[in-house]
Amino acid sequence: MAKFQTIFVTGGAGYIGSHCVVELLEAGYEVIACDNFANSVNGEKGTAPSLERVEEITGKKVTFYQCDLLDYERLNKIFSQHKIDCVIHFAAMKAVGESMEVPLLYYKNNVVGTINLLEVMKAHECYQLVFSSSCCVYGNPERLPITEDSPIGNVTNVYGRTKYLIEEMLMDLSRSDERWNICSLRYFNPVGAHPSGRIGEDPTKPYSNLMPYIAQVALGNKPSLTIFGDDYNTLDGTGVRDYIHVMDLASGHVAALAKVEKDKIRYRTFNLGSGVGVSVIQLVQTFGKVTGMTVAYELKPRREGDISAMYSNGERAKTELGWTPRFTLEQMCEDFWRWQTMNPLGYRSECGAAKDSAAVTNGTSVTNGNH
Amino acid sequence: MAKFQTIFVTGGAGYIGSHCVVELLEAGYEVIACDNFANSVNGEKGTAPSLERVEEITGKKVTFYQCDLLDYERLNKIFSQHKIDCVIHFAAMKAVGESMEVPLLYYKNNVVGTINLLEVMKAHECYQLVFSSSCCVYGNPERLPITEDSPIGNVTNVYGRTKYLIEEMLMDLSRSDERWNICSLRYFNPVGAHPSGRIGEDPTKPYSNLMPYIAQVALGNKPSLTIFGDDYNTLDGTGVRDYIHVMDLASGHVAALAKVEKDKIRYRTFNLGSGVGVSVIQLVQTFGKVTGMTVAYELKPRREGDISAMYSNGERAKTELGWTPRFTLEQMCEDFWRWQTMNPLGYRSECGAAKDSAAVTNGTSVTNGNH
Repeated sequence: MAKFQTIFVTGGAGYIGSHCVVELLEAGYEVIACDNFANSVNGEKGTAPSLERVEEITGKKVTFYQCDLLDYERLNKIFSQHKIDCVIHFAAMKAVGESMEVPLLYYKNNVVGTINLLEVMKAHECYQLVFSSSCCVYGNPERLPITEDSPIGNVTNVYGRTKYLIEEMLMDLSRSDERWNICSLRYFNPVGAHPSGRIGEDPTKPYSNLMPYIAQVALGNKPSLTIFGDDYNTLDGTGVRDYIHVMDLASGHVAALAKVEKDKIRYRTFNLGSGVGVSVIQLVQTFGKVTGMTVAYELKPRREGDISAMYSNGERAKTELGWTPRFTLEQMCEDFWRWQTMNPLGYRSECGAAKDSAAVTNGTSVTNGNH
Repeated sequence: MAKFQTIFVTGGAGYIGSHCVVELLEAGYEVIACDNFANSVNGEKGTAPSLERVEEITGKKVTFYQCDLLDYERLNKIFSQHKIDCVIHFAAMKAVGESMEVPLLYYKNNVVGTINLLEVMKAHECYQLVFSSSCCVYGNPERLPITEDSPIGNVTNVYGRTKYLIEEMLMDLSRSDERWNICSLRYFNPVGAHPSGRIGEDPTKPYSNLMPYIAQVALGNKPSLTIFGDDYNTLDGTGVRDYIHVMDLASGHVAALAKVEKDKIRYRTFNLGSGVGVSVIQLVQTFGKVTGMTVAYELKPRREGDISAMYSNGERAKTELGWTPRFTLEQMCEDFWRWQTMNPLGYRSECGAAKDSAAVTNGTSVTNGNH
């Protein structure tokens, strides 16, 4: 296969996307990114504050387009203007709770958006793809740790179902036409931020991910963290998840890209996780220890649909991608806290957006660790 | 619920759609139909020959639009012009073999088309739907006969996977918003034709369904029927399927419509089959007996992905819809043969289409009974 030069990153302004762009630039790739700002803050005139900071961090340029994947024509134009070697496809709606309330919107954005992207790729003879999947595709796992050969389907929420459907579609596509070379990365629970504190997770919707929520409690913006379920069959009864530092996730993408660049894999899935199960209480305690802050929490009964425990077997990524996570749980908390304290209003403080939209709400949506 | 007057039928010019329109008109509903002519023959100026014959049979009018479900604006306009009480959604690409070759096209047409339809319905506050699903959603069944509670997923082909994905989406939709009232009908193997011989199955693509293929062999247009697999664990070793007369299927839709009209079912699935397993050889023999024609066949090894045996448990449709099939296997053969001999070129002989497009090909695509 020809050496990759130019990578198209959908959802590039988002939390995981922006961190991945840092790693791509540092690995020497040219990056064309697009985002529709559904999950990320936009600046003036369609710029992406997160990617401006990525340029600062790396000293390199990113070509950015404000573009929704549902806009076939615009997407097609981007592919006409650049010779794209591979696509990393992050763009998706991702709030689990919201996905149950507005499923059609999730199917449309995630599934139809991906179909458009694949059609445009095919029209421009770009057959290389790294897709952002999720550990959600495993549903409620029968055995832990989860290997990539575990059955997928029986997904417990709409968000995860869209990821599962896209995986099925990608598999069908690769079976039908050997030109495709596709990698699906099944993320476990990404947390943390770039160690510089310049980029990080800046939710545009009410907090539903655990670590941003914990930080809001630590900052006194929310009274306490509600933990649903303390009677699971886990070490302390609370839900167990596999947290992975977003920079490890980013380097996992570069490793996957190198794999797609080098080998004809047709279609291959990889878990990206730390391989370690951590309970909600363990995470809260580690966060408190690292930051010196107190995080009050309240235990409530289980929520329907929540899974007791979930963590990855990372053997395949280690063997085939040569990738292993390097960051500890302490570093995840530390880096997240640095980002949080350096940017109490996220990207908004610099980008001209109204400060009172800073999403410090009384939202009731909390978590047992599901992302 | 208010009484239904006007039913919108997508794919109304197609094989099952046109037979269903007969039953709808005879039950007193007003019918608005659309079709993109992907699977059905079109006449001059965008008319539908099948529906013109439906009008002859019933003495009633059908309002017809040539419309592709991917054309949101046109679909939206139809809904603006008519007060639609319920939608029966037949429109889909349906060739199993082709679906494996061009999966993206199938995902786009079937899944994106359905998302568009659902969005337009919602925009016009039409929340009643009867959806054409397929027994394919059960994959390779663990137990026979198949009840609606059997697990779905693990589908063996892309066509069936699109049906499965749409079912999942419909289920999510009904969970998220109680205004929806949706029925998915899981068809087994529809065969036969209207007893008048005026409407029937007229494939626009090379024959892949069993009965039209058998007829081509009987007519001498094809040398012999290839039967894949004679060592299945069935009475004579050939694949077993559940054939249902298309007029029974049509009355099943009217029964389902009445259910949606009367009861708040939210989301409910029903098998529509005869409940009887028939082997390929049994079907060939019955066809020969009824028509007096000889059908040569050739036995070849199994094809990958084919299922040994599949037939329905029809208890739920009987109990909840008050529906049972009335036609025998002999009638299915007889009615199909009447249609075939009265219309050797299908609808083409009357509609101005070139006669040499009559699809009597040397196509190698045959069947073990899968539809």
